Amino acid sequence: MSGRVDQELEGVTLLGNQGTDYVFSYNPKVLETFDNKHQGRDYFVKFNCPEFTSLCPKTNQPDFATIYISYIPNIKMVESKSLKLYLFSFRNHGDFHEDCMNIIMNDLIELMDPHYIEVWGKFTPRGGISIDPYTNYGRPGTKYEEMANYRLMNHDLYPETITNR
Amino acid sequence: MSGRVDQELEGVTLLGNQGTDYVFSYNPKVLETFDNKHQGRDYFVKFNCPEFTSLCPKTNQPDFATIYISYIPNIKMVESKSLKLYLFSFRNHGDFHEDCMNIIMNDLIELMDPHYIEVWGKFTPRGGISIDPYTNYGRPGTKYEEMANYRLMNHDLYPETITNR
Amino acid sequence: MSGRVDQELEGVTLLGNQGTDYVFSYNPKVLETFDNKHQGRDYFVKFNCPEFTSLCPKTNQPDFATIYISYIPNIKMVESKSLKLYLFSFRNHGDFHEDCMNIIMNDLIELMDPHYIEVWGKFTPRGGISIDPYTNYGRPGTKYEEMANYRLMNHDLYPETITNR
Amino acid sequence: MSGRVDQELEGVTLLGNQGTDYVFSYNPKVLETFDNKHQGRDYFVKFNCPEFTSLCPKTNQPDFATIYISYIPNIKMVESKSLKLYLFSFRNHGDFHEDCMNIIMNDLIELMDPHYIEVWGKFTPRGGISIDPYTNYGRPGTKYEEMANYRLMNHDLYPETITNR
Amino acid sequence: MSGRVDQELEGVTLLGNQGTDYVFSYNPKVLETFDNKHQGRDYFVKFNCPEFTSLCPKTNQPDFATIYISYIPNIKMVESKSLKLYLFSFRNHGDFHEDCMNIIMNDLIELMDPHYIEVWGKFTPRGGISIDPYTNYGRPGTKYEEMANYRLMNHDLYPETITNR
Amino acid sequence: MSGRVDQELEGVTLLGNQGTDYVFSYNPKVLETFDNKHQGRDYFVKFNCPEFTSLCPKTNQPDFATIYISYIPNIKMVESKSLKLYLFSFRNHGDFHEDCMNIIMNDLIELMDPHYIEVWGKFTPRGGISIDPYTNYGRPGTKYEEMANYRLMNHDLYPETITNR
Amino acid sequence: MSGRVDQELEGVTLLGNQGTDYVFSYNPKVLETFDNKHQGRDYFVKFNCPEFTSLCPKTNQPDFATIYISYIPNIKMVESKSLKLYLFSFRNHGDFHEDCMNIIMNDLIELMDPHYIEVWGKFTPRGGISIDPYTNYGRPGTKYEEMANYRLMNHDLYPETITNR
Amino acid sequence: MSGRVDQELEGVTLLGNQGTDYVFSYNPKVLETFDNKHQGRDYFVKFNCPEFTSLCPKTNQPDFATIYISYIPNIKMVESKSLKLYLFSFRNHGDFHEDCMNIIMNDLIELMDPHYIEVWGKFTPRGGISIDPYTNYGRPGTKYEEMANYRLMNHDLYPETITNR
Amino acid sequence: MSGRVDQELEGVTLLGNQGTDYVFSYNPKVLETFDNKHQGRDYFVKFNCPEFTSLCPKTNQPDFATIYISYIPNIKMVESKSLKLYLFSFRNHGDFHEDCMNIIMNDLIELMDPHYIEVWGKFTPRGGISIDPYTNYGRPGTKYEEMANYRLMNHDLYPETITNR
Amino acid sequence: MSGRVDQELEGVTLLGNQGTDYVFSYNPKVLETFDNKHQGRDYFVKFNCPEFTSLCPKTNQPDFATIYISYIPNIKMVESKSLKLYLFSFRNHGDFHEDCMNIIMNDLIELMDPHYIEVWGKFTPRGGISIDPYTNYGRPGTKYEEMANYRLMNHDLYPETITNR
Ligand SMILES: [Ca+2]
Ligand SMILES: [Ca+2]
Ligand SMILES: [Ca+2]
Ligand SMILES: [Ca+2]
Ligand SMILES: [Ca+2]
Ligand SMILES: [Ca+2]
Ligand SMILES: [Ca+2]
Ligand SMILES: [Ca+2]
Ligand SMILES: [Ca+2]
Ligand SMILES: [Ca+2]
Ligand SMILES: [Ca+2]
Ligand SMILES: [Ca+2]
Ligand SMILES: [Ca+2]
Ligand SMILES: [Ca+2]
Ligand SMILES: [Ca+2]
Ligand SMILES: [Ca+2]
Repeated sequence: MSGRVDQELEGVTLLGNQGTDYVFSYNPKVLETFDNKHQGRDYFVKFNCPEFTSLCPKTNQPDFATIYISYIPNIKMVESKSLKLYLFSFRNHGDFHEDCMNIIMNDLIELMDPHYIEVWGKFTPRGGISIDPYTNYGRPGTKYEEMANYRLMNHDLYPETITNR
Repeated sequence: MSGRVDQELEGVTLLGNQGTDYVFSYNPKVLETFDNKHQGRDYFVKFNCPEFTSLCPKTNQPDFATIYISYIPNIKMVESKSLKLYLFSFRNHGDFHEDCMNIIMNDLIELMDPHYIEVWGKFTPRGGISIDPYTNYGRPGTKYEEMANYRLMNHDLYPETITNR
Repeated sequence: MSGRVDQELEGVTLLGNQGTDYVFSYNPKVLETFDNKHQGRDYFVKFNCPEFTSLCPKTNQPDFATIYISYIPNIKMVESKSLKLYLFSFRNHGDFHEDCMNIIMNDLIELMDPHYIEVWGKFTPRGGISIDPYTNYGRPGTKYEEMANYRLMNHDLYPETITNR
Repeated sequence: MSGRVDQELEGVTLLGNQGTDYVFSYNPKVLETFDNKHQGRDYFVKFNCPEFTSLCPKTNQPDFATIYISYIPNIKMVESKSLKLYLFSFRNHGDFHEDCMNIIMNDLIELMDPHYIEVWGKFTPRGGISIDPYTNYGRPGTKYEEMANYRLMNHDLYPETITNR
Repeated sequence: MSGRVDQELEGVTLLGNQGTDYVFSYNPKVLETFDNKHQGRDYFVKFNCPEFTSLCPKTNQPDFATIYISYIPNIKMVESKSLKLYLFSFRNHGDFHEDCMNIIMNDLIELMDPHYIEVWGKFTPRGGISIDPYTNYGRPGTKYEEMANYRLMNHDLYPETITNR
Repeated sequence: MSGRVDQELEGVTLLGNQGTDYVFSYNPKVLETFDNKHQGRDYFVKFNCPEFTSLCPKTNQPDFATIYISYIPNIKMVESKSLKLYLFSFRNHGDFHEDCMNIIMNDLIELMDPHYIEVWGKFTPRGGISIDPYTNYGRPGTKYEEMANYRLMNHDLYPETITNR
Repeated sequence: MSGRVDQELEGVTLLGNQGTDYVFSYNPKVLETFDNKHQGRDYFVKFNCPEFTSLCPKTNQPDFATIYISYIPNIKMVESKSLKLYLFSFRNHGDFHEDCMNIIMNDLIELMDPHYIEVWGKFTPRGGISIDPYTNYGRPGTKYEEMANYRLMNHDLYPETITNR
Repeated sequence: MSGRVDQELEGVTLLGNQGTDYVFSYNPKVLETFDNKHQGRDYFVKFNCPEFTSLCPKTNQPDFATIYISYIPNIKMVESKSLKLYLFSFRNHGDFHEDCMNIIMNDLIELMDPHYIEVWGKFTPRGGISIDPYTNYGRPGTKYEEMANYRLMNHDLYPETITNR
Repeated sequence: MSGRVDQELEGVTLLGNQGTDYVFSYNPKVLETFDNKHQGRDYFVKFNCPEFTSLCPKTNQPDFATIYISYIPNIKMVESKSLKLYLFSFRNHGDFHEDCMNIIMNDLIELMDPHYIEVWGKFTPRGGISIDPYTNYGRPGTKYEEMANYRLMNHDLYPETITNR
Repeated sequence: MSGRVDQELEGVTLLGNQGTDYVFSYNPKVLETFDNKHQGRDYFVKFNCPEFTSLCPKTNQPDFATIYISYIPNIKMVESKSLKLYLFSFRNHGDFHEDCMNIIMNDLIELMDPHYIEVWGKFTPRGGISIDPYTNYGRPGTKYEEMANYRLMNHDLYPETITNR
C-alpha cells in the first residue's frame, strides 16, 4: 500500500506552511480535517498535548495543563497542526478547567462527528489542589454511546500519585 | 462558546479574595458551589489534595495524607478554593483516618448532591504501617448506585509499591 | 460530625500506650478492634506493611516481605498498632510464604468477621526467585463471595517489573 | 520436550544470515514465517519495536515511534528478524502516523492470518503534540472478533504521562 | 496455627541441601512439590524469575529473559529451589522464545495439575526488537478454563514502555 | 526566634493582595523585594518555576520551559509572588531561549545585587530537539566570581535522559 | 560491642513515653540530646522529615515541606522523637520559608554545638512556584568552616525535576 | 531589554521557512548561525537530540541514538532548526558510533569556534551491548582547554542503569 | 587467567554449606575472609544489604534498614555469606541506628584491616522521621585517611527524595 | 568527513559474519580491535553490558550481572561484537565476582593498551546481599594514572537504591 498522495492531502493547508498565524483568542475555526482511509475499521487516535495554557475567568491568572484527547474516527480526522493552533487559541481565554475540557470536546465533535471521543485535562495546582476534568461522548443511539458509559464507569480507578513537586 | 461571565460566578466569594480567613477547626460551612454548565452530560472532576493534615484522636499526634476526590457533578459543583479551606479546617481536628474520609464524603454529598463521588486517602505510616481508606457513593436508586458497587468491586487491584521511604 | 470521643475508643488499649511489650513468637491474641461508625456503607481500608519478616521453616533463614492487606469492614475494625504487634509476632516464626499469607488472613477473618478481605505478600528473592502469594475471601453466601471470585479472576494481570536490584 | 530442530526452521532464511540486504523503501515481501508448534492453544506474542522511523507525507520530515505489536498466532508466526527488516523498509516511506499503523497490521494479517492482532504506535511530538494510533483485528465471525471489540472498548483508559521531555 | 512441621516438608529434598548439582541441559525431572495446606481456597502464587537464559536454536546465541509464573494451586505446589534448578536447566537449551514459555507451562501442568497457570516471558532485544510471549491454561471443563479465556482477552492492554536502554 | 512581624514585610504589596493585575508583556518593574534577616550567613534560595511560557521571535509560536533559579542573597531578596508576575510578563514576549535566560538573570541582578545567582531553562522540543540554556554570575572581584567559574566548569556533567515523551 | 545500656540513655525522656504532649506553637525547649559514643570519629547523621508544616506570616495559609537535616556530631546528639516534637511546634508558627530553615539550624547549633550541620527545605508550590532554601554551618575557625564553604559552593548543581504534579 | 529584532535574525533562513528540503546524506553545509548577544559572559547551551539515526558502516543496518550537545558560545551560535537538518543528514551515512560523535563535534567547532563543546551519544544495543561515546574540546591555550580536561576526568562516574528494556 | 581453585577457597566454610546455623544475637565471630588476588591494585567492593533489622534499645521495637558497605581491600576480603550471617546477628540486638553503623564498621576493620571502608544505613521512619547514619575510615597515616576526609566532605550533597510512602 | 571505508575495517572479522561460533568457556582470544581514527583526542567509550553470566567457583550456581566498561582509547579499540563473544565466554567459567571484574579489565588492557579503563559489575543478590566490584587503571607514569586515582577516590558516593525487587 503506497503512502498518501497529494489529492489525499487536500484541505490540509497548515501543515508545512510558512508564516503560520498564531491567534491567542479562542478560535475553533482554525481546525482542519483530512479523510479517514480506514473507515471500515474502528481504531483509536490519541493526541498528547502537554503545552496547554488558559486564564482563570475570575482572576485572569494563567493556568497550565496537559490534555489527552482520544477518538475513534468516522469520516473526518483532525489534522494535528491545526489542533495545535486551536489549543493555542485558549492562551488568552478565561474559563474554568471543567468548562475548557467540555468546550474542546464539543468543538471536535462539531468538526469531525466522530464515533467516540474523550478529553482529559490534568492541571497544575493552585492553593495546593490540582483539578483533572474528564469528559467523553459516543454517538447517540449507537454502540459508541454504550462505550462512553462503560469508559466513564471505569474511569481513573487508579489516580496517579500527586505530590505537587 | 465564550468563557464564564460574571453572573455565572455568583456565589463564588472566596476565589481571588483578599484577606481569606484560615480556620483550623473542622468547619464544613466554608464550602461554596457554582453551577454546572454541562448538566446533560456525565463527566468526572478529580481533585488531587496532597496537603491534608489532621490529628490522632487518641494521642493528638499530627497525621498527613494525600486525598483524591472524584465526582460526577449534578447541578452544583464545589469551588476549589473553598474546598482547600474546608480541608485546612481538619488541621486541629482529631479523628481516625477511616472516619475522616467518610466525613469528607458525607459533607460533599450534603453540599452538591452529586450523581457519584469517591474519596481516597493515602496516609504516611505510623509504626511502619500506613492506612489508605477508600469510600464511594452513587445516588440511591439510580445507575450511579450500581456504578459505586462496580467501582468498589474493582477498587485497587494493584496496590502501589510502598517502601516507607 | 465531631471526631471520635473516648467511649468510641474503648478496647483500644495499645495505641499511645507506654511500655508496649514486643512479642516475637506468633501470637494472634494481640489483635484489638474498634467499632465501625459507617456500617451502612461498603468501603475499603488498606494497610501497607513493608516491614514484615519471618523465618524459613526448613533452614531458619530470615525472610522479608511487604504485605498489603485490604478489607471491607463489617462491625469490627482492626486497630493498626495492634496489627503492627501481630505482624511483629512472626519475627521468629518459621513457615512458607504461602502459608504465612493464609494464616494472616484467617486470623483477621476470625477477629473481624469482615465482609471482604485480601492479603498480598511480596517477598525478597532467594536463589534469584521471589514469591508473591495472594489470597482473598468474601463472606460465604453473600455478594462478597462473588466479589472475591471476581477479584481473583482479575488478579495481577500486570506483574510489576522485577530485576532483583 | 526437545528444542526446535532444523526441519522446524525451514523457511527461516534471514535469521543468522550473513550479508543481510537492508531495503529502505516500503517492502512487505521481506516478511517470513515459521510454524506454530502450539496450535491447540491460544497465547499471545508481543513485539516491542522502539526503532521505527518513517517520513511525513507532506513535508518529508522524518518521524520516530515505538511500536507495540501483539497477536494470537494461528498456523503461521512471523519471524522477528524479517519483521525488523520489514519495519526498516518504512525508513524512506512517507505517510501519516494513522496510516502506517493500519498498513503494518494489514500486512501482518495478510502474512499470518492470525486469530487476533493489535498494533500501537507512540510517536515523538511535532509542534508540541504527539500522536499515538492504535488499531486491532479479530478474525471475522469468530470469538476473536468480539475480543477485538472488547479490547478496543477498554483501550488506554490510563494514558501514560507525557511531558515532551 | 503453627508453622510447617517436618512431615509437611517430606519430598522437599533440595531446599537447604549442601552440594546442589547444577545441570545446564533441559531437565524437568528436577522439579519437586510439597502439599497445599489450603486446598479449600482459591489463591494465587507468583514466581518472579529475572535470571532466565537459554540459547537461540538457529545461531546458538544466548538469550535472556525475566519470567513471571502465576498459578492457583490444586493439591501439589512446586518448591521454589527446584523451580530455580529447572529454569537453570535451559542454560544450554536451544529454542524459540515462544516455545520455551509453552514448554515451561506444560511441564508445570504435568507436575502440579494446577487449577490455573500462566507464564509470561520478557526477553532482551535482538536487532532492536524484543519478544514477550504469554501463555495460560485453566483445567478443561472447569471454571478455570473460562478464567484462562478471560485473562487472555484482557492480557496486556497496557504494554510497558520499552526503550531498549 | 519569633516569626516575621509586619514591619519586616514592608514593601511586600502583592502577596495576599486581592485584584492582582496580570500583565502579559515583558515588565521587570513588577518585581518586589524584602530584607534578608540572615545577612551574616551565605545560604541558597532556589525557585522551581515549571510554568514559564514565551514566544518565538521569528514565528511567534509559543514556547514552554521549566526554569530553575538559585541565588545567595545579599541584602535584598525577591518576593515570590512578584517573581511569578514577572515570569508571566514573558507570556507575549518574543525572544530566543538563550536570550530569555540571560535577561531574567540580568533583571534579578539589577533588583537584588545578589552575591551569586544562576538561571537554568529547560524547554520543550521543537523539531525533535530541545534547548536548555544555563547562565550564572558571581559579584565581580569577590569569591563569588570564582564560585561562578567553578559551578560553570562543573555544570551538567550528567544530562538528564530525554526521550521527547 | 554491646548495645546502649540504660545509663547511656539518661536524658532521653520522650522516646517510648506515654502521653506525649504535642505543642503546636514554636518551642525549641522540647529538644533533647544523648551522648555521642564515637567522638573520635567524624561521621554524618541525616534526618529525613517529610511532614513539616508551618504558616505564611502574611496570609496565615499553611505551608508544607520536606526537610533534610544532616550533621557531624560533636558531643551531644539530638534525639529523634524530640526533633519530631520540635518540628511539630512550627504547626501554628508564621514565617517565610527562608527564615524557618535558618531558625531550625540556629536552634540545633545552640542545642548540640555540632562540628557541621546543614538544613534543606523543599516546599510545595504557591502560585506555580516552589521555594527550596538551603543553609549550612561549620564551627568557626575549624576545618568544618571550610567544609561549609565547600559544600555551599557545590550545592545543588543538579536541581531535581519539578513539574508541580 | 526587548526581544530579538529582525536584523538580529539575519542569516537565519531555515527557521519558520516553508518547503524545507530534507537531505539524508551527510551534509555539514546545512548548518547556520546567529550572533551571541551575551559575549561578555560564559554560559552553557545544551541540545537534547533523541531522534538521531545513522547506518552501520559494515552491515548497513540502521543505528539509533540520543545525542546530548553542550557548548559555551563564543561569537557564533548554531541555529537549532539547521542543527536538526544536519543531524538528519546522517540518516543514510555509514560510520561507527565513535566516529559519528567526533565528526559532529568537529563540524560544530568548524562552524562556531566555540570556547568549549562536548558531544555524548547513547546508542541502542546490538547483540545485547550498547555503546555510549563521549568527546569534548576546549579552545587550545585557553582556560577552556583545562575545562575540557577536567570534565573528561570527571566524566560519567555514575553510569545510568541499563537493562536493554 | 583461570578461576579460583580449591586452595584459594580455604577458610571459606559457610558458602554452599548445608545446615547453616542462624544466630540472632550479636556475633562478629561468624565473619570469614578469603585472600585478595589483586593486592597490587586499589579497587572497590560494595555490598548492598536491604534486609537489615535490629531493635530499639529503649522500646525493643524492631527497626529496618538498607545498608551499603563499600571498601578497598587490603589482604583479607570478607566472604559474603558470612557477612549475611553477621548482619542477621543484629536481629535481636538493641541499639541506636548511629551506633549500629559504627559497630559494623569497627568489626569489619578488625576483621579485614582494609585500606578504606564506609558504611551507610538508611532506616525506615519512626514518627514520620527516618535516620540515615554514614561513617567511614581510611588507614591512619596513609593516603586512604585523606580519602576518608575527602569522601566525608563530599558526602550526600544530594539527599534522595523521601516521602515516607 | 566520509564514513569508514573497507580498509579501515580490516581485522574486523566477526561483525556481520554468518555462522558465528559461540564459545562458553573463558576465551580472551576472541577479542578483536580496529584503529582509533581520533588519536590526538582524549575521549571516552562506554559499553553497557546487561547480559553477563558466570558461575560460582564453589557451588557452580549461575551468577548474573550488568557490567559497565568505560575507556579512553589509545591506538587500538575493541570491536563490540568480539566483546560480546568474549563476555559470553564466561558462561561456564567459575570465579568470584571481584575476580571476574579484574580479569576482564586485565584482558582489555592486554588487548588495547588503553590510556584509561574502568570496569564496574553490578550482580544480582544471593542470600539477600548483592556485590558490586569496581576496578580501574591508568597507564603507569602518565596523567591517566592520576586520573585513575582521582576517579577511585570519587567512586560511587551515591550508591543506587537497592530493594532486591
Ligand atoms: Ca509527583
Ligand atoms: Ca514529583
Ligand atoms: Ca517508596
Ligand atoms: Ca527493580
Ligand atoms: Ca530496574
Ligand atoms: Ca516525560
Ligand atoms: Ca520523560
Ligand atoms: Ca526503558
Ligand atoms: Ca530506558
Ligand atoms: Ca522521557
Ligand atoms: Ca513531578
Ligand atoms: Ca531500562
Ligand atoms: Ca518515596
Ligand atoms: Ca513515594
Ligand atoms: Ca529496586
Ligand atoms: Ca523501591
